[in-house]
Amino acid sequence: MPEFLELLPPPEALKRLMDHLQPQPRLEEVDTIQALGRVTYDGVNAPHALPSFARSTVDGFSVRAEDTYGATEALPAYLRVAGEVPMGKVAGFALPKNQCALIHTGGMLPDGANAVVMVEYTQQVQVDEVEILRAVALGENVLKAGEDVAEGQEVIPGGIRLRPAEIGGLMALGLTRVRVSQQPRVGIISSGDEVVPPEQEIKPGQVRDVNAYTLSALTQDLGGVPVRYGIIPDRVKPMRIMAEKALQECDVVVITAGSSASTRDLTAEVINALGTPGVLVHGVEVRPGKPTILAVCNGKPVIGLPGNPVSALVIASIVVTKVLEALLGVRRFTPAPSVQARLTLNLPSQAGREDWIPVRLVSGPEGYQAEPVFGKSNLIFTLVRANGFIRIPADATGLHAGQQVEVLLS
Amino acid sequence: MPEFLELLPPPEALKRLMDHLQPQPRLEEVDTIQALGRVTYDGVNAPHALPSFARSTVDGFSVRAEDTYGATEALPAYLRVAGEVPMGKVAGFALPKNQCALIHTGGMLPDGANAVVMVEYTQQVQVDEVEILRAVALGENVLKAGEDVAEGQEVIPGGIRLRPAEIGGLMALGLTRVRVSQQPRVGIISSGDEVVPPEQEIKPGQVRDVNAYTLSALTQDLGGVPVRYGIIPDRVKPMRIMAEKALQECDVVVITAGSSASTRDLTAEVINALGTPGVLVHGVEVRPGKPTILAVCNGKPVIGLPGNPVSALVIASIVVTKVLEALLGVRRFTPAPSVQARLTLNLPSQAGREDWIPVRLVSGPEGYQAEPVFGKSNLIFTLVRANGFIRIPADATGLHAGQQVEVLLS
Repeated sequence: MPEFLELLPPPEALKRLMDHLQPQPRLEEVDTIQALGRVTYDGVNAPHALPSFARSTVDGFSVRAEDTYGATEALPAYLRVAGEVPMGKVAGFALPKNQCALIHTGGMLPDGANAVVMVEYTQQVQVDEVEILRAVALGENVLKAGEDVAEGQEVIPGGIRLRPAEIGGLMALGLTRVRVSQQPRVGIISSGDEVVPPEQEIKPGQVRDVNAYTLSALTQDLGGVPVRYGIIPDRVKPMRIMAEKALQECDVVVITAGSSASTRDLTAEVINALGTPGVLVHGVEVRPGKPTILAVCNGKPVIGLPGNPVSALVIASIVVTKVLEALLGVRRFTPAPSVQARLTLNLPSQAGREDWIPVRLVSGPEGYQAEPVFGKSNLIFTLVRANGFIRIPADATGLHAGQQVEVLLS
Repeated sequence: MPEFLELLPPPEALKRLMDHLQPQPRLEEVDTIQALGRVTYDGVNAPHALPSFARSTVDGFSVRAEDTYGATEALPAYLRVAGEVPMGKVAGFALPKNQCALIHTGGMLPDGANAVVMVEYTQQVQVDEVEILRAVALGENVLKAGEDVAEGQEVIPGGIRLRPAEIGGLMALGLTRVRVSQQPRVGIISSGDEVVPPEQEIKPGQVRDVNAYTLSALTQDLGGVPVRYGIIPDRVKPMRIMAEKALQECDVVVITAGSSASTRDLTAEVINALGTPGVLVHGVEVRPGKPTILAVCNGKPVIGLPGNPVSALVIASIVVTKVLEALLGVRRFTPAPSVQARLTLNLPSQAGREDWIPVRLVSGPEGYQAEPVFGKSNLIFTLVRANGFIRIPADATGLHAGQQVEVLLS
């Protein structure tokens, strides 16, 4: 059997996978304080308006705006001081006509007041009298009740990854618990007769498992929970037993194949036996990462990655990212972090194939320079030396030195 | 006393703070598997070469390159098959002249072999004889021992934040423990007579503490450990007692002041009493965030942030980020994640002042558009609505609609 029946371009390959998934995020309620990076399960509505009362945005005197009309330095308005608004409390008095009250930033406007004059534009002439040197408009220097958020308003949509700002916003509303999507469990299976665990001394011919750990770390970064199933020999039966167990216990299964063509075919065979529809994509027109398998078995995504560490991590960064976002129900468009840089070398690329080139960023007087880090795709330290990747799309035949490129940070 | 004696531009303000710090990262050894995002304390050297033996990068026949010279499809070289190289083991035989051995990707070259012919360029004519249809050069399709990493080579420098690639690289070398910098403890004190904890019902005039939680989340994001000291009344004595405790127990202290000028002066007074040299910067020429205090007390950074949540988070994103990077010993230049976008509106800006404008990114056919999110700087949900910030430097007088801008992702 020829290994690759059909090589799909990466976007089509990914689309074919996603078209076969109906991910159903599962609800979990957690303490807001623990929720950084979690994804909202559904929209959050404000239990009350914010601010919940009219607040001053400056230090000064709260007034009725109309009492200040026409006031200038040459011809000030004179207002009686009715009192001082204590912080964190109601004033305890209403503001009569032609009176004002000392107020601090964040203080609650007394009844009757509708604007605040900054202290810089006032002059206290007596203990209980102030000159207003500048007129204020209705609502000036005031945060109105509900100006940030109205009661009942959706303040955070569903499918949003919570950042520090959202954590703060929830706390402002007294929402100390939040409904988020459960973290998907990603089952990770390594295979290869030559592969041994990291803690083991290697004998000639052996290499240590790298993929299980880069994939675990990537999974953590993406908000999933990695579950490692160890290293399986390159034979159908043990691989199938382990894959079935992983499929049962996890939401996604990732198998890194041994590196030879025969073991890759074995992975495809095992995946096809796991459930329907089975293998959807076998081979992607991308370098590195051509021998990628994308499958759905009984509603769960199963991904067969190339054995070599660079290919495995590049493909996982593309595919596992999308799959986990779908399982988490991420809906807000999140731009991939990137920087613009100037390429230092010509980079030829075969038309029809998407290329991902690891680059090192160097900061120069005219911005960043992107230096390609060359290395065979088996060399994990190629990625350690790189800050990110340049993606050369399938329809391009290469990039030239000096060209402005987008570097996707890794 | 005038509140701001001298307003410094943000870069100078930050420099003055950093010039007074001699941060000493502290060593901690952790399991590599737990080390994602941690920062290397010092350089990591390879205990052995990688790969540790010459490996094939393809499926095919390992050969002596000289035995294939001149081979073409029309005039193949005929080589005897000495055997098959098992995966994960030494071949168990040396390759005699004019012989070859079947080998799989990742297999260890037998003694005597110095190149591999891809299986596509061979034809098995008998069980023990193969036609070689194309000559290979010395080392072709072979990863040499040490081609990724030489024994003793520094593979990861000190001061690097560990990504999935580094975790994998460490595992490849059998380094299941790694020396990292301890996570700095960031003491967070909120103040303000109007501020109550998030779990509390608010009465008129009260607001819930937001800053302690946005700052905790930011600290977590940056690799520090937040320690919250609660909400202190706006009086010197309780604030000083708590600040002293925090300074003793933590590596950094952040105090968010009440929002009025008088409580900000109180914060400066408390910080000055904590230790020498005390307040270095009182007021930064930036919006939002002008009333920022930067101090060093007995060797530790102490930061006084404006009370309003947007200012506090913007300034912390600039200052606390730098301080934590210094305390962690981060040395590798890390580009701030950003995207290029086209501005949808004119943005005026006062010359001499740096402005940070929250924007929402919208993906369009010609790339991203950046829509400014307007809102008074007291409104935390302004930040929730934004994907990032545009920084307008002090020497610019504004940006115009349609202009290409860099959006720093938040």
